[in-house]
Amino acid sequence: MPSQMLAEIAEQPEALRRTFAALLPQIGALEALAAETRQVLFIARGSSDNAAVYGQYLCSARAGRLATLAAPSLATAYHATLDLHGVLAVAISQSGATEEIVTTLAWARACGARTVAITNVPGSPLADAADLTLLTQAGPERAVPATKTYTTQLAAVAVLVTAQGRGSGGGGSGGSRELEVEALQRVPEAVAGMLEPAPAVERLAERLVDVETLVVSGRGFAYSTALEVALKLKESCYLTAVGLSYADLVHGPIAIVDAGTPALLIAAADGPMLPDMTALARRLAGTGADVYGIGGDPAFAAACRTTLPGPSSPAGPSGPGGPSLPEHLAPFALIVPGQLLAEALARAKGIDPDAPRGLRKVTQTGN
Amino acid sequence: MPSQMLAEIAEQPEALRRTFAALLPQIGALEALAAETRQVLFIARGSSDNAAVYGQYLCSARAGRLATLAAPSLATAYHATLDLHGVLAVAISQSGATEEIVTTLAWARACGARTVAITNVPGSPLADAADLTLLTQAGPERAVPATKTYTTQLAAVAVLVTAQGRGSGGGGSGGSRELEVEALQRVPEAVAGMLEPAPAVERLAERLVDVETLVVSGRGFAYSTALEVALKLKESCYLTAVGLSYADLVHGPIAIVDAGTPALLIAAADGPMLPDMTALARRLAGTGADVYGIGGDPAFAAACRTTLPGPSSPAGPSGPGGPSLPEHLAPFALIVPGQLLAEALARAKGIDPDAPRGLRKVTQTGN
Repeated sequence: MPSQMLAEIAEQPEALRRTFAALLPQIGALEALAAETRQVLFIARGSSDNAAVYGQYLCSARAGRLATLAAPSLATAYHATLDLHGVLAVAISQSGATEEIVTTLAWARACGARTVAITNVPGSPLADAADLTLLTQAGPERAVPATKTYTTQLAAVAVLVTAQGRGSGGGGSGGSRELEVEALQRVPEAVAGMLEPAPAVERLAERLVDVETLVVSGRGFAYSTALEVALKLKESCYLTAVGLSYADLVHGPIAIVDAGTPALLIAAADGPMLPDMTALARRLAGTGADVYGIGGDPAFAAACRTTLPGPSSPAGPSGPGGPSLPEHLAPFALIVPGQLLAEALARAKGIDPDAPRGLRKVTQTGN
Repeated sequence: MPSQMLAEIAEQPEALRRTFAALLPQIGALEALAAETRQVLFIARGSSDNAAVYGQYLCSARAGRLATLAAPSLATAYHATLDLHGVLAVAISQSGATEEIVTTLAWARACGARTVAITNVPGSPLADAADLTLLTQAGPERAVPATKTYTTQLAAVAVLVTAQGRGSGGGGSGGSRELEVEALQRVPEAVAGMLEPAPAVERLAERLVDVETLVVSGRGFAYSTALEVALKLKESCYLTAVGLSYADLVHGPIAIVDAGTPALLIAAADGPMLPDMTALARRLAGTGADVYGIGGDPAFAAACRTTLPGPSSPAGPSGPGGPSLPEHLAPFALIVPGQLLAEALARAKGIDPDAPRGLRKVTQTGN
């Protein structure tokens, strides 16, 4: 019997369609709220924090607004008193019930911030605490590892950033809002195209079944995907998967990648990060390490021992990865082979992917 | 022959004295620069990034100012155009020559930020790019793993935050500036008190010699220490040391800590985080994992299999850890047992701690 996690991975194109349909009409309200602010502060933990990292890059690179991540314990344990006027605080929590996140958003509001909640549960405490709520339409998620709730959080973040862009008249690096909305509406089809390559996923899972430690790395927009793939592998497969940015990896711990510790590198099919990621794959392979890839282009794939296809580049011919996505939207599709790999590897290791040990669905950090 | 790394660890009290003596007189100039801004954005990589994480907590909790971390690739690869007026951008780099950091600080300045450089090298490109430079007085560091340059970066960050506090008349959670300056001046003596417990360090290194993976965790101010200890162990010992915040650990990958993967927990001797860290030690020990500690109080030590002493609490009796430090300054002392452990473990594994493979002193991320 297929796992619930696998079923929920496959539901993602439809969950994304529903989420974009529900949230794109909120662009006007989001724009009005954002107009009272100058910057974004994300508040999240776990998978939601990885969606926030995507938001950090998307918001700065595409909407020209400073976006950074909060440290919730500053609110919950140290009770810091900050002036957050001009800040749009965006809290992300699937359940909307993680007490630490609810408390931190309420704290941000009391400090003067405007507030947005991104949650999958209407009427949750987080939704009640915010000026505006973006309800993801993932439906109930029964497997413990977050999959469709993660990608629909990416969708909410993308809508939020689109609303903060320079609008239809502005142009800028983000292009017009109409073009961006059209690009978002092509995301579900591209994600559907990622659900195919099951044999390659099973083969890679077989290779990894005795591996204890894996380094997962990405750069730029795909860094968030590397963090989320590492988290899925840690949660579902008890594998010590270390998620590191390209920069943090080459700045120090690159020595841990060796014959016994493979690397999994994640890259979009184009963009400024791809040459560096291809060079990193060659460098690591040159040390005798097994290097695996998700995404990239043919040169990247040639530098890796095995690659799971990602979305193709809009500029190039349609590759084996199916529908194309621009680099800044590639994380919607790049995560899917990572989810499939975590599910297959859990099964290969005799772990129930739906209920790994030590985890509950609503996590409380304490305090 | 003792390693250069060990000699440089032992130089820290004197390096800190020199650094505070050089930088405390800059408080007036820092205050004037900070008065033109409302928040801090740190720019750093590697060990310097861990000093920035300390700065994030210190600045928000003690000076009541929002402080967050930048993603340098937004500047260097995506060329994001942001409005950074009102932002104090603080770049940290030992060499002052890491191109990515220099480029990102210059970008922040072009976007309207006021800029501070924290570097150990006068006349370095980073120093030239900033409105104001805080020169750490570590002296030349010959071992590749950063030790005295890291703790003197903490000193520069603490001076920066003290200058942004509410001043002598303000009070607030940070106390008066005079009291804070006095507290900073007691730091070198407390660090000196950490250089003693060599036999305990050697014993713990022997226990870890065959361990491939270690989870290092801390919370609040000590989170930055956990990240830095993990980085030292990765760089110097090729150990897969995963640095995780308490919250990120209990939110998911706690399943990776088991009989084969020990945990090293780091805690100050008092403060709001200590009860959670003690409970975490008990929870992990209950799963059969080996749990080691740095710092904490007697209850924390009782929950761990072995503990390397940290600084004692100013409120309690002077413990085996010697001189006391308040929780927000404990990271200066808590890192020292971690540095000693990395040095001892490298030797125990037959690695030259002064020159681990794959690393150079000035790192360039590329781009």
